[in-house]
Amino acid sequence: MNRIHVPTGNAYDVLIERGILQRCGEIVSELIGASACVIITDDNVDRFYGDAVQQSLQKAGFRTEKFVFPHGEASKCADTLLRIYSFLCEKEITRSDCLIALGGGVVGDITGFAAATFLRGMQYVQIPTSLLAQVDSSVGGKTAIDLPEGKNLVGAFKQPAVVLCDPDTLSTLPKEFLTDGMGEVIKYGMIADAKLFDLLCSLDLESIQAHFDEIIPICVGIKRDVVAEDETDTGLRMILNFGHTLGHAIEAYYHYETYTHGCAVGAGMCLMTKYCGNPDEYEKLRDCVERYGLPSEVPAPMDELAALCGHDKKRAGGDIRYIVCSPIGTADIRTDSLEQFRKMFERTVCA
Amino acid sequence: MNRIHVPTGNAYDVLIERGILQRCGEIVSELIGASACVIITDDNVDRFYGDAVQQSLQKAGFRTEKFVFPHGEASKCADTLLRIYSFLCEKEITRSDCLIALGGGVVGDITGFAAATFLRGMQYVQIPTSLLAQVDSSVGGKTAIDLPEGKNLVGAFKQPAVVLCDPDTLSTLPKEFLTDGMGEVIKYGMIADAKLFDLLCSLDLESIQAHFDEIIPICVGIKRDVVAEDETDTGLRMILNFGHTLGHAIEAYYHYETYTHGCAVGAGMCLMTKYCGNPDEYEKLRDCVERYGLPSEVPAPMDELAALCGHDKKRAGGDIRYIVCSPIGTADIRTDSLEQFRKMFERTVCA
Repeated sequence: MNRIHVPTGNAYDVLIERGILQRCGEIVSELIGASACVIITDDNVDRFYGDAVQQSLQKAGFRTEKFVFPHGEASKCADTLLRIYSFLCEKEITRSDCLIALGGGVVGDITGFAAATFLRGMQYVQIPTSLLAQVDSSVGGKTAIDLPEGKNLVGAFKQPAVVLCDPDTLSTLPKEFLTDGMGEVIKYGMIADAKLFDLLCSLDLESIQAHFDEIIPICVGIKRDVVAEDETDTGLRMILNFGHTLGHAIEAYYHYETYTHGCAVGAGMCLMTKYCGNPDEYEKLRDCVERYGLPSEVPAPMDELAALCGHDKKRAGGDIRYIVCSPIGTADIRTDSLEQFRKMFERTVCA
Repeated sequence: MNRIHVPTGNAYDVLIERGILQRCGEIVSELIGASACVIITDDNVDRFYGDAVQQSLQKAGFRTEKFVFPHGEASKCADTLLRIYSFLCEKEITRSDCLIALGGGVVGDITGFAAATFLRGMQYVQIPTSLLAQVDSSVGGKTAIDLPEGKNLVGAFKQPAVVLCDPDTLSTLPKEFLTDGMGEVIKYGMIADAKLFDLLCSLDLESIQAHFDEIIPICVGIKRDVVAEDETDTGLRMILNFGHTLGHAIEAYYHYETYTHGCAVGAGMCLMTKYCGNPDEYEKLRDCVERYGLPSEVPAPMDELAALCGHDKKRAGGDIRYIVCSPIGTADIRTDSLEQFRKMFERTVCA
């Protein structure tokens, strides 16, 4: 088993092992004094893993309840959150009980936010089942819901009690979800690990499967280092946003319908590198991104995307902050006025 | 000026001074590097103080926006919260801006929760204008909204950047709101300060006005001591709940329509003391409570109220915790099964 310790205010471990999902009950019962566990998941994930998790928790002596909502980003909204709250009330869940986030990023984000806010805070466990959630969103305690005005606009920092990461679940993942997660995996190579990036450039969506046991701990380790230094996202953590400033703008421009998060991040990283990196780096990144089925550009006009970045919540006052990875394996936090930022994308770039 | 320092994780001061509301702008600008301040208030308070606060903030150089919602507990709901979020998006408020909670407990609670969650957290200032908010709810960082299932079921711990407490605002307070706040003032005497309790027994709703400059800092000081020791409500802070376990049940039993929070707490304290204190203490408390126009009992059957206490969010697993103040000026945290707790109120008590 790979155990990665995350030394945040409330410290916890990320446990990575094939098959760990099947024995989540015993691990949770060792860590948590809850009497009831509420599994929160979506209909897709429930079909594959709902029963296994519930049985394991029951075997470990927990009363279990399960709340299932429709899969997809559209569910990460105030309406689903309010239905979760009502469910927790109906089941008479108390502060000392525990929520179990079983699923991908949407499930993890909304469950974490419910745990952060129901009764002013209760514990929760992450069991990420998507690549994106395993390498990125389940670690670090960022929780959120979307508003009609934008993604992740409401949320909290709430660290889980433990993250149970089972690479076996990736084998049941539809190919497009694997592609989606690769956006974040490539990001980790770009911001902090040129060797990881090179490895990714030598693999593809098929051959990478055999390398996940090696790749997931590398990504989680990078994220742990960043999060430990900046738990509440006031400085270094910003580097995790590489590709996300434009990525969020791309998602918003297309009303969250055309591009998944990973695809938007893929294009966002490429566009940022095209305009701010050197041509060699851009070409390498573009090839890597396309190798995993991610787009390296989008038809939307750059000036409109740049303008949309003005709504990014990472903005400090009137300025906008963004990340440039040049050379690959390093991350530079830059601050510009929105005006300067928009101008940057006006110049003609050949690549 | 009375300055009471609250040494929580994010430490801050409670500044108590007549007229401080009129010069909030200069104080906020000394403490906070925000470019915009969003005043959140209700229609009643806005009429009296909205302009003064806005002008003071503008004079200090802030861009100001104002969001006004209808007064009353019914506004402390998800719907108002979502409208606040939309307003903040529309006004392009960023993480480094500041919310100003101008009003009573409802305004403070919902504004604090919006500040805790919008963009995963931004700073906020409390300007409490009711007695209840000045002596109790504005200090300690408890923020919340109500659900249809009960009060304060969703919230967060989020300390304000500063609390500006202006006793002058109490003179514009309708008499029933003063009565409402006296529930908490008497509570402080009961749990921690027999001298304060005796002082309250010698005054009434008229004569107390001249003593607020003395009484408010005493109450805030007690709350500070408790909160500093137990910021996130896992132990000692429970004593602040004296009268509230039954009080919340009373509010819920009457669907939050018949009894205000203060009235419910008044009756809750008396009933708890009637069944768990000695007859002398009960008589003294009953006289004090009634002296300020608060009820010392309610027509609702005790067994139904006790059963409703089972929904209290302070419950740990199957047990219920409650506070007994005997002798007056001390607080004892007791834990019983819900069954034992209900039984306690079955016996006949003469007083």
